Amino acid sequence: MDRLFINLNLVTMQTSLSNPSDGYQVINNAMIGVTNGIIEYVGPACSDVFHGHPDVIDCGHALVTPGLIDCHTHLIFAGNRANEFELRLKGVPYEEIAKQGGGILSTVYATREATEDELYHLAVQRLEGLKRDGVTTVEIKSGYGLTLDDEIKMLNVAKRIATLPDMKVSTTLLAAHALPPEYHNRSDDYITLICDTMIPTVAEKKLADHIDVFCEGIGFSIEQCQRVFHAALKHGLGIKGHTEQLSNLGGSALAASMGANSVDHIEYLDEDGVKSLAQHNTVATLLPGAFYFLRETQLPPITLLRKHSVPMAISTDFNPGTSPIASLRVIMNMACTLFKLTPEESLRGVTCNAASALGLQHSRGKIDVGMEADFALWQLNSPAELSYRLGVPDLIARVVDGVLFHEN
Amino acid sequence: MDRLFINLNLVTMQTSLSNPSDGYQVINNAMIGVTNGIIEYVGPACSDVFHGHPDVIDCGHALVTPGLIDCHTHLIFAGNRANEFELRLKGVPYEEIAKQGGGILSTVYATREATEDELYHLAVQRLEGLKRDGVTTVEIKSGYGLTLDDEIKMLNVAKRIATLPDMKVSTTLLAAHALPPEYHNRSDDYITLICDTMIPTVAEKKLADHIDVFCEGIGFSIEQCQRVFHAALKHGLGIKGHTEQLSNLGGSALAASMGANSVDHIEYLDEDGVKSLAQHNTVATLLPGAFYFLRETQLPPITLLRKHSVPMAISTDFNPGTSPIASLRVIMNMACTLFKLTPEESLRGVTCNAASALGLQHSRGKIDVGMEADFALWQLNSPAELSYRLGVPDLIARVVDGVLFHEN
Ligand SMILES: [Zn+2]
Ligand SMILES: [Zn+2]
Repeated sequence: MDRLFINLNLVTMQTSLSNPSDGYQVINNAMIGVTNGIIEYVGPACSDVFHGHPDVIDCGHALVTPGLIDCHTHLIFAGNRANEFELRLKGVPYEEIAKQGGGILSTVYATREATEDELYHLAVQRLEGLKRDGVTTVEIKSGYGLTLDDEIKMLNVAKRIATLPDMKVSTTLLAAHALPPEYHNRSDDYITLICDTMIPTVAEKKLADHIDVFCEGIGFSIEQCQRVFHAALKHGLGIKGHTEQLSNLGGSALAASMGANSVDHIEYLDEDGVKSLAQHNTVATLLPGAFYFLRETQLPPITLLRKHSVPMAISTDFNPGTSPIASLRVIMNMACTLFKLTPEESLRGVTCNAASALGLQHSRGKIDVGMEADFALWQLNSPAELSYRLGVPDLIARVVDGVLFHEN
Repeated sequence: MDRLFINLNLVTMQTSLSNPSDGYQVINNAMIGVTNGIIEYVGPACSDVFHGHPDVIDCGHALVTPGLIDCHTHLIFAGNRANEFELRLKGVPYEEIAKQGGGILSTVYATREATEDELYHLAVQRLEGLKRDGVTTVEIKSGYGLTLDDEIKMLNVAKRIATLPDMKVSTTLLAAHALPPEYHNRSDDYITLICDTMIPTVAEKKLADHIDVFCEGIGFSIEQCQRVFHAALKHGLGIKGHTEQLSNLGGSALAASMGANSVDHIEYLDEDGVKSLAQHNTVATLLPGAFYFLRETQLPPITLLRKHSVPMAISTDFNPGTSPIASLRVIMNMACTLFKLTPEESLRGVTCNAASALGLQHSRGKIDVGMEADFALWQLNSPAELSYRLGVPDLIARVVDGVLFHEN
């Protein structure tokens, strides 16, 4: 083994997705052995092995979890919606804010105006927040360009972020996020552009792992989303959806039946929909940040998800309009406080289940032999504290592919 | 002037407490001149002054606010309530958790066990979280010792924190926080201990600026709080109270009529109570973290507070039982999202009004001539962003008494 990490209180999360009461699977006084960035040994420390080994990192009894995975973000955008936030709280009517250029289209216009460099630097600053919370893998969506060139520009920025040595990126084309103004009253034509031009181009350039849609009355219809999913699958891309956030249209069941890795939001999902996720092994990704920020009252169907053993992921949904929260620890607390998840479900939601939401369950999200050596070292006594306490800088370091990155 | 800070977009908060619609009072391309830690000049940059000056700090167009003030914390304690949090979310009944040693008394026992050194190191780690949010003044309460020696131990720790060069501390004796088990059924006797022994000792040792009480059915009665306030005033100490959090007992009006700098929580305060705050210039300190964490539904009377021009402060209330949130930026967002404060009210709540809550309005909380040179430099475009966006590390540095402390 290249490198040994010793003196760990290890939270392996070596649990099956179908049994949510397996526990954290803690190993105290543990050791991890890494070869070429892959975990080769996990278990009790063997002094025979580490004595005299040339590359031993003593972690001083840190609590060690898998590197956290933020599986749903809109990290790349330009412009600023703080002004809109302020106007709303000052009581300025919605129509007036829209007239002053608020809403998602303000982000679209600003993002179209911005260069790749500008978008990169904005995104990297936001990413620092996620790093402070122990994130080692982030999913990044396009969706504020809404033209072929601008969606590609956003995905290029995501790919540039993916070259950072200390962050892994999963990229998603979300061209079906909002109807661009140029296609007013011609949403089917825009879907045609996505299916016939954007998806083939993005697939050919290998810019996206998944295709995502916003399936909603104010987004795109079931039929339109189905067209997008078909095109994605035809080009070998994974699928996922923003579904059942504001109403129950059946988008989650559609996505699941077509093999989606995850369906996200799902506040309005009913039991038939939940059963469909269970049947197709689709992850339910919960986004408490948007629920909090929009002061929603309809809770996702947590009890039904547990009843049918649907794996739950949780994520920041970081975006300027509905979840300007670049902190996965804040979101873990909100999952417990607002959605009544247990701290264990919360941690599973940002490790093994978040990996499944990205189709990465065989390489990330738990600390086990054969997995990529991505983990987070914490100055904490118990894994429950990750969801309980906010704001104290308790991350010691992150490890990505076996390489240590100290926070500062 | 000793030192000049130039290239600032300055949010001075030079507003009168009685007029909450004065605005942020922004000065772009501003300069601050400091002599002996006190602000001597605030205004447009004068190149005549700064050219050739031996000590000029170029702030590169940073947004600059007064150093933030967290005016209500329980920062010092030992023990861990994450376990209790987890048990509750797993559905373990309250009685069972109490049997396993949960609740405030678990914190009291752990704090009594801990040494000053242990308490200091725990508190300082938590303080790092507040520093990251631009805090330069923190109020710290005792209240987990509940014996003379243990309350003094906690205040000694607070005084040790006060010797840090980059943090100012206001200390508060909160012996009337909970009834210690030794005084079961003898709460009047405990109040006598507080009035006749603790307050005189703490006053003589100059360990506390304020005396605080928990005036509530599950805390102490109006009559008992009145006794504590009388003793405090007799010994020249300021007063404040945890009042009207769970019911309307009249504690806020009592405290205000006796000259309290602030009354805190006040979810159940009625209009007569609000008028009493207005009449006596008492600050209303709102604590949205506890409201969030406890999933309360009774909102503080924001509309009435605005109607009667009562200054509102906001604070973390950082504590292990009801607000384990060591982030003032999270709290600023919650003040807007949950309490519908405007971003301007939120910023006033952690600057000028927080200073008033501590009786420090003549020296801190705004950027003005004669004030202490405490400020925060942000990589932000507008002050509204402070309350809007979470998690992005946008603090560049803090300045305390004119000395620059870079975050890292
Ligand atoms: Zn989203
Ligand atoms: Zn308190």
